[in-house]
Amino acid sequence: MATFTDLDKTESFKALVALKKASGSFDFRYALTAERVKAYRIPMAEGLTYSFAAKAVSDETLALLQKLADEQQAVQKYKMLLDGEVMNTGEKRLVLHQLLRACGSPLGKAVVHEGRNIGDFYAAELDRFCAFADRVHAEKRFDSVVQIGIGGSDLGPRALYLALENWADKSGERRMKASFISNVDPDDGAQVLSKLDLARTVFVLVSKSGTTQETLANELFVKAKLRAAGLNPAEHIVAVTSETSPLAHNPAYLDSFYFDDFIGGRYSSSSAVGGVVLSLAYGPKTFRDFLSGAHAADASALKTDIRKNASLMDALIGVYERNVLGFPYTAVLPYSQALSRFPAHLQQLDMESNGKHVNRDGSRLFYSTGPVIFGEPGTNGQHSFFQLLHQGSDIVPLQFVGFAESQRKDDVEVDGSSSQTKLKANLAAQIVAFAKGKEDENPNKNFLGGRPSSLIYGKGLTPSSLGALLAHFENKVMFQGFLWNINSFDQEGVQLGKVLAKKVLEGETGDPALDEYAKMLEI
Amino acid sequence: MATFTDLDKTESFKALVALKKASGSFDFRYALTAERVKAYRIPMAEGLTYSFAAKAVSDETLALLQKLADEQQAVQKYKMLLDGEVMNTGEKRLVLHQLLRACGSPLGKAVVHEGRNIGDFYAAELDRFCAFADRVHAEKRFDSVVQIGIGGSDLGPRALYLALENWADKSGERRMKASFISNVDPDDGAQVLSKLDLARTVFVLVSKSGTTQETLANELFVKAKLRAAGLNPAEHIVAVTSETSPLAHNPAYLDSFYFDDFIGGRYSSSSAVGGVVLSLAYGPKTFRDFLSGAHAADASALKTDIRKNASLMDALIGVYERNVLGFPYTAVLPYSQALSRFPAHLQQLDMESNGKHVNRDGSRLFYSTGPVIFGEPGTNGQHSFFQLLHQGSDIVPLQFVGFAESQRKDDVEVDGSSSQTKLKANLAAQIVAFAKGKEDENPNKNFLGGRPSSLIYGKGLTPSSLGALLAHFENKVMFQGFLWNINSFDQEGVQLGKVLAKKVLEGETGDPALDEYAKMLEI
Repeated sequence: MATFTDLDKTESFKALVALKKASGSFDFRYALTAERVKAYRIPMAEGLTYSFAAKAVSDETLALLQKLADEQQAVQKYKMLLDGEVMNTGEKRLVLHQLLRACGSPLGKAVVHEGRNIGDFYAAELDRFCAFADRVHAEKRFDSVVQIGIGGSDLGPRALYLALENWADKSGERRMKASFISNVDPDDGAQVLSKLDLARTVFVLVSKSGTTQETLANELFVKAKLRAAGLNPAEHIVAVTSETSPLAHNPAYLDSFYFDDFIGGRYSSSSAVGGVVLSLAYGPKTFRDFLSGAHAADASALKTDIRKNASLMDALIGVYERNVLGFPYTAVLPYSQALSRFPAHLQQLDMESNGKHVNRDGSRLFYSTGPVIFGEPGTNGQHSFFQLLHQGSDIVPLQFVGFAESQRKDDVEVDGSSSQTKLKANLAAQIVAFAKGKEDENPNKNFLGGRPSSLIYGKGLTPSSLGALLAHFENKVMFQGFLWNINSFDQEGVQLGKVLAKKVLEGETGDPALDEYAKMLEI
Repeated sequence: MATFTDLDKTESFKALVALKKASGSFDFRYALTAERVKAYRIPMAEGLTYSFAAKAVSDETLALLQKLADEQQAVQKYKMLLDGEVMNTGEKRLVLHQLLRACGSPLGKAVVHEGRNIGDFYAAELDRFCAFADRVHAEKRFDSVVQIGIGGSDLGPRALYLALENWADKSGERRMKASFISNVDPDDGAQVLSKLDLARTVFVLVSKSGTTQETLANELFVKAKLRAAGLNPAEHIVAVTSETSPLAHNPAYLDSFYFDDFIGGRYSSSSAVGGVVLSLAYGPKTFRDFLSGAHAADASALKTDIRKNASLMDALIGVYERNVLGFPYTAVLPYSQALSRFPAHLQQLDMESNGKHVNRDGSRLFYSTGPVIFGEPGTNGQHSFFQLLHQGSDIVPLQFVGFAESQRKDDVEVDGSSSQTKLKANLAAQIVAFAKGKEDENPNKNFLGGRPSSLIYGKGLTPSSLGALLAHFENKVMFQGFLWNINSFDQEGVQLGKVLAKKVLEGETGDPALDEYAKMLEI
């Protein structure tokens, strides 16, 4: 049996706080040696590596972090989740996004719910939408796909699509162009449609509940445009939804693909939510390779030794930085233009999962949980907000990502080095500059250092390494939820705004201040 | 004569801290009335309004903030800056971005430097590049423009370009399509070029110093591609640079447009850096309207009464939130898809300007300066990181932006309301939900409230209102620099990484840990 304890009640957390108090600040100028850089790394799935040499953790700290992981039974709880226990306590649901990528080889027990083997259901839907993509490619009726969805139905699929564009073009796997409509702002849909040949476009309408306000509004907007172009919407739209939604089993759609309540929106990229659009754009094999990379990362997250489990180590260091060192944010900095929207996806994944102030049983917590996550690709960020990261009044922990090779391998040699080499040289330089700083007589040019960072690196960004990268972060966020003793799988915080917006639209808010805001905005 | 005092040495700051201690927390459930929403707003330039009703400031707080503005001589220092004093103390430079949009009617004295009237120089360059754009449009040789630049030469121009796409398409002002190459990652340039007809494309090469590593690498990449396509680079590239740069007066370019060291990169959207690409894309009149809106905002920032000066009020509330309430971040949340990259630009503007830990004279400061800035458009953010904003363990101050009308006015009515109305209803609802929260028996559905926000709203997003919006934030950041007594106009923090990257490329770092990182990345 697992026990569920708030972080501040654990012995190992108290010991971490005491250790920090006794040992003072960690000085990278002495600690960050070549030996440490060599030793403080963990192999990940698909040839990726997690390097934590530039994190402010001593071997003593790491020993206590191992104790914390054990005391909070992080891996045991992950196994419970894989085995189909109700880990989403607030909504009383299973949490099964890892099962989506198991493809017949689940990491835990077979999950049977109300008589159905869920793993088989997910695998069958995967086969169905892959076959659909093959059919679309064979028929050649469409050359463009548009995803209509918001939040988890948009950010993950969009980030993954952008991450693989160069790879697909280079390797000849590109099948179709994809676009995305998410915002209820009518300018979003109107602009996307203005650039498309509707007759050659298939739409993927994504809403688990089938009641998402933004998505339904955009659906009707698209349908009106299709009709105005003399086209039949039922021949241009497929639905991705749950079987109990009003969109399900509906002849208004060309086809429908299903997932269920055990897949949170922000974890749904591995389901039909990401799978339909990615299979259409880059072919089913690409999407299956992505799943296989994610599955390998899920398997590697089962190790109890934190020196062998990158997701768990990353999670523990994050909690240490948040609750012992007191840093309220983390910057995600991929040195890869292909990952331009990956930070926005991680922002949702992390902040929606762990932005909670009650524990899994609903008791108020009095320690910090999920940090603010933000980021942009390097080297772009170096010419933007890195000033504050280097010389600001507060320390921001950093999470770098980088690859040995570019995706297109179309490069130019300037001053004796390729652009890819320059990109990597900047990445290496930043890690050390942040950690060690530099003293200067001119106080404006003085760098205090002490800015901790981790680095995930690999040979190249491919479907399988992208899958491993995404699953790493999903599992990191999950482990942090276990360490904080919160439910990372609900999102009740999004409800109140929806309820009030509905009241505004109905004209009966009962709140004069809200009415005044509505008047101000000319509603 | 102005005096320069650190924030924590001012009487009014001490009084603010004492007042907060004596009065406890601000309760929006009682304080946020319709009357307050009506009264706590300030007219801005170009029909915009700044609403601060949902900020945690009482009238007593506001009176002390007025004192703080007066004590720190915020408006007086702005006037000194306009008059051409050396306000960039570290680099010993004038700060003249407001003069770029004065167009012959400067708000301060005529600025003459080394015998040259700088206002006339800026106006003449504006005329020159507007004439260039007219010529390009008349000749019809190019239908596409690509900006090559990074940091301030990318983020601002790109955000503004995206902000006006729908407006330009709707109003028939679109002249050319624009793209942007920024990252040294070779996949960035290769991908952009793969989508273009090079024969029909003009490139704008932007680097003030003419030595930016990323931009020069991308220039050579583009030149190689042009040559490979049988085209002459000198007929396809214009330079935007300073007159002392190696790019200046260079026959290798079709034409060259100049700005100078008194324009920081992040403040350069109003110069040829933003002007050439925007004039080419949307016509010179559009860019001049943008400047005129920014100029109007600059003029309105001269008022000493904080109840009439939105930029100053916004700055003061931000300092109050940072240094009295202790919030380390601010989220920027435009309810307008057109402003999708505006938060990324503000992130640079704010964090690069005010991410400092020494005062304007180089003395170490022991209070917090610039916060972390992040954000995404609404309603998208509602389905993403808003969970943490509503129910996370810490409070994040919010800055909303919204408009009465969409840009394209291509909309659909669903359930009795248009999408634009739904967008606005959500915005109004969020402000009140964040401020007032909601008690619920189910702790997972409990909202603590007390999340402060401001709102900038207007009729629509046009070139002139966009100019006013941008200048508002530039001036807010400037005023905060005066309040914190820092130099908001240098960025020495970006240097160390550059120096170390160069050493890595040259193979002589002198730091074994850095060498080990380089080896890890296969350099």
